[in-house]
Formats: sequence, C-alpha cells, structure tokens
Amino acid sequence: MYAVEVFVTYKESILDPQGEAVRNAIHRLDFEQVKDVRIGKYFEINIEKTEEPIEEVVESLCKNLLANPILETYRYNIKEVN
Amino acid sequence: MYAVEVFVTYKESILDPQGEAVRNAIHRLDFEQVKDVRIGKYFEINIEKTEEPIEEVVESLCKNLLANPILETYRYNIKEVN
Repeated sequence: MYAVEVFVTYKESILDPQGEAVRNAIHRLDFEQVKDVRIGKYFEINIEKTEEPIEEVVESLCKNLLANPILETYRYNIKEVN
Repeated sequence: MYAVEVFVTYKESILDPQGEAVRNAIHRLDFEQVKDVRIGKYFEINIEKTEEPIEEVVESLCKNLLANPILETYRYNIKEVN
C-alpha cells in the first residue's frame, strides 16, 4: 500500500484572491509580519500496489482529476506503508 | 523570513464527503486501486522574523483562523529562508 500526499496550488502567475482575503483577516488579528498567503488543496490518498508503476498512477490522477493544469501546479510525496 | 506550510484536515472521526466524491470519480476513471481519499486545505505563508517565536505565531494563526479545532486538525512545517 502507498500513502500519497498531493499538493495542488495556483501557478505563481495566477492571482489567489482567497489567499489575499486570508492575509487580510490575519492582519486584522494583528499579525502584521505575515506577508503572503497562498491557498491550495491537499489530498491524502491510499493506493494499493498494482503492476502499474505508482508514479504513473499518481501523475495520471493529478493531470486528469486533481489539478487543472492550465491554472494549477501540483507536487506529491509517495510513501510505501503496510 | 520564514516559509511556513500548514496542512488542515478533518479529524479521523469526521466524515469527509468531498473526499468520498473524489474517490468515486477516481474509480470511474478505472483506478480501482485507490482505496481512500481525504481532502484538506494547504496554506503557504511567508512570515517575517519578529521577536515573537515563530512557533507561537503559527500556532496562534492555526488555532484562531486557519483550522476549526472542533472538526479539524492541523500540522505545519517551518523553514527559514532569505
């Protein structure tokens, strides 16, 4: 079994209004030292071992379903677990 | 400057219907080996150094704003950057 973590965030060039709203809320809590907030999605996925290489499975999931490759980038960690 | 990553997920005991919907969509793409999907929020936050210890700042942000401690748990990584 694999435990996979996937992180999906907007590309650098894409505005993140939700992150901006959170930063403004943080400033209202008097944490002026917070300079930038970007928000993304986080997926924890358990995947059984098959003959297909796990990297290919995860790449395919990210490209086809979890991320919108026009606006978003993704990265992932794969850990083998029992 | 610190680069902080915060991960907020539902507690284990809380149903995650969005994660279940994504798992079902994955099964329709014929990835039957995907057993479980849980969805969370992911924050990338840049914080300037101040006299206040960075762990206290991040704990306070998580508890007061980023996570709902009744339903959610959080964890974070703090990295010093230039």
